[in-house]
Amino acid sequence: MADMAGIRFELGARDPHTAARVGRLHTSHGTVTTPAFMPVGTQGTVKAVTPEELVQVGAEIILANTYHLYLRPGAGVIEELGGLHVFMHWDRPLLTDSGGFQVYSLGALRRIEEDGVRFQSHLDGSRHLLTPEQAIEIQERLGADIIMSLDECVPYPATREYAERSMELTLRWAGRGLRARRRKDQALFGIVQGGMYPELRARCADALVELGFEGYAIGGLGVGESKALLDDMVEATTTRLPEDAPRYLMGAGTPEDLVEGVARGVDLFDCVMPTRHGRTGLLFTHEGELHIKHARYARDPAPVDEQCGCETCRHYSRAYLRHLFLAGEILGARLNTIHNLAYYFTVMRQLREAVAAGRLAELRRRFRAERGEGKAPCSG
Amino acid sequence: MADMAGIRFELGARDPHTAARVGRLHTSHGTVTTPAFMPVGTQGTVKAVTPEELVQVGAEIILANTYHLYLRPGAGVIEELGGLHVFMHWDRPLLTDSGGFQVYSLGALRRIEEDGVRFQSHLDGSRHLLTPEQAIEIQERLGADIIMSLDECVPYPATREYAERSMELTLRWAGRGLRARRRKDQALFGIVQGGMYPELRARCADALVELGFEGYAIGGLGVGESKALLDDMVEATTTRLPEDAPRYLMGAGTPEDLVEGVARGVDLFDCVMPTRHGRTGLLFTHEGELHIKHARYARDPAPVDEQCGCETCRHYSRAYLRHLFLAGEILGARLNTIHNLAYYFTVMRQLREAVAAGRLAELRRRFRAERGEGKAPCSG
Repeated sequence: MADMAGIRFELGARDPHTAARVGRLHTSHGTVTTPAFMPVGTQGTVKAVTPEELVQVGAEIILANTYHLYLRPGAGVIEELGGLHVFMHWDRPLLTDSGGFQVYSLGALRRIEEDGVRFQSHLDGSRHLLTPEQAIEIQERLGADIIMSLDECVPYPATREYAERSMELTLRWAGRGLRARRRKDQALFGIVQGGMYPELRARCADALVELGFEGYAIGGLGVGESKALLDDMVEATTTRLPEDAPRYLMGAGTPEDLVEGVARGVDLFDCVMPTRHGRTGLLFTHEGELHIKHARYARDPAPVDEQCGCETCRHYSRAYLRHLFLAGEILGARLNTIHNLAYYFTVMRQLREAVAAGRLAELRRRFRAERGEGKAPCSG
Repeated sequence: MADMAGIRFELGARDPHTAARVGRLHTSHGTVTTPAFMPVGTQGTVKAVTPEELVQVGAEIILANTYHLYLRPGAGVIEELGGLHVFMHWDRPLLTDSGGFQVYSLGALRRIEEDGVRFQSHLDGSRHLLTPEQAIEIQERLGADIIMSLDECVPYPATREYAERSMELTLRWAGRGLRARRRKDQALFGIVQGGMYPELRARCADALVELGFEGYAIGGLGVGESKALLDDMVEATTTRLPEDAPRYLMGAGTPEDLVEGVARGVDLFDCVMPTRHGRTGLLFTHEGELHIKHARYARDPAPVDEQCGCETCRHYSRAYLRHLFLAGEILGARLNTIHNLAYYFTVMRQLREAVAAGRLAELRRRFRAERGEGKAPCSG
């Protein structure tokens, strides 16, 4: 347990056979039980659902993207309207990313320099420079409970030389961000980079810990590498991080990623998968994924998942959801999203219970057996 | 008050200065207080909202479109899954149209014959013949509480000769539909046509009453005619209809249409306007309409309508709704739809209260003064 700016992280039970742990992350907007999954609210809304529905399916903390909100409607507008919590009607814990990953995703539209990232808006082509100091300033204006350092996401594959230089830039940016922060009611997380090189990951983690952050994120994963490599990089990182600070695996992942991340001591996850897949009709069940558009569901009166108690599964058949999907109805996107989020939160709850009971290894085996290892529709 | 198959209509107070009346329409799925507005659930869902949200904003009965459901997913699928109520998770009163208006809207893709309407599906070009008997059979399989006769919607403008021939065809189809019905737990409504010719409207109404239906609809309006002409045709029709049967003005309309229809003795309305306008960002307020995308709302912390108590107005600012709209977010469509429906149901409640208090004329004057007569964004 440690007292930190903005947050207080209280460690609970540990699993005796893995690095998994449960905990409670206290913020000024409420408490998050960890390990926790954070739905992604890119543009200040988790696509297709309301804050009330998020609470109902089990969300305790959500994420919003600095890059998108900076471009539209602008940090000034949100600050003027009382901050992001008020703007989007979410009065619980909230995390914003630094904008680094979105800018990285712009490809040809961005250039990395020592000072920061130059990029062109995907909306109107306007030119911007995002420095580590500005990333902090924007996030302070947005007002989330947890904010992130600006980092460079190393592409995959990358040479050791590139990964090392990039990691060192990320470290310099982390230091600049730390010095630039003014608000004491937000927690600032550093981001571990280092490509797929365990020793770079370890060096980056050590250096960030030396700088001293309220939490540590693992970035640059889920960029095309294998699941085994992702798991190895997580392990190479978490083993170097202090026990008493929260660890956040950025952008992962599949239900399998959650299980493996928790086993390696990760406390926070985010991924667009449950929401994005909901909109494209790919639904998670305890027996694997199903594509709701498939003709086999045309007359199927069963719910998506017999074991699920979400609003979608309580009230609607696969046949109806298929109809909504084929008809392009908004309600289909809503109901699918609600179900997928409910699935993710059920997995997280089961993981926390298993860790608390010292039985994570057992749950992991059962999970693999039920869902199969190869059933994940994409790699993260 | 009269006992009828499927429904029982109980007349309440009448306004002393107009033809307005309040009533209660009892069905086997519950009671509707009239005058009532029916949100349109074209494809078995009122676009963007759940049944629970419909109840919350005040909906007591909704409408679904036979044409769309016949083509996809098919009446057989819906019947097999327990009927439309179960399929779409709506356990309250439900009305289906006959498919006639949608087929009429297909233009070049349809041909009217004595036997019925030949048309090509807008989805896959497949060829279909919809007869009055089949319109009833399909609606019996869907299982709504109120079903409609197949009619021909007269285009506007139309010659008297065309309107008369068409009206006579609608009458023959009405008789065939009546003879074809089998289910006794549904109410069947006849549809008054006759173009913009009051004497044809009167003749059609008289002949339908002679045939004997559980309720009467006014069709073929809102097809391009002026508001004054629409109001005249409504009056030419309602004055010929029996007091003790419900009257339904199909497809109208604007908030002003509701007020004028109620004053002429209409009991039921439906229109896509609140839901469609919600998705395109046009919001109804007691001071007139507003386009949420307008730059003037970029930093506006006020709710859409200060006088509205809907979920949208309680929790979200115009600035946030504008942001969601510009960002193309599904939540924007949801929240706008909820507000617009709430506005319509507030108008309907005010109308019922005014009729019950014998003060409809007063409300009508206040409504015109507040909203202005020319503020409606489109004619119906």
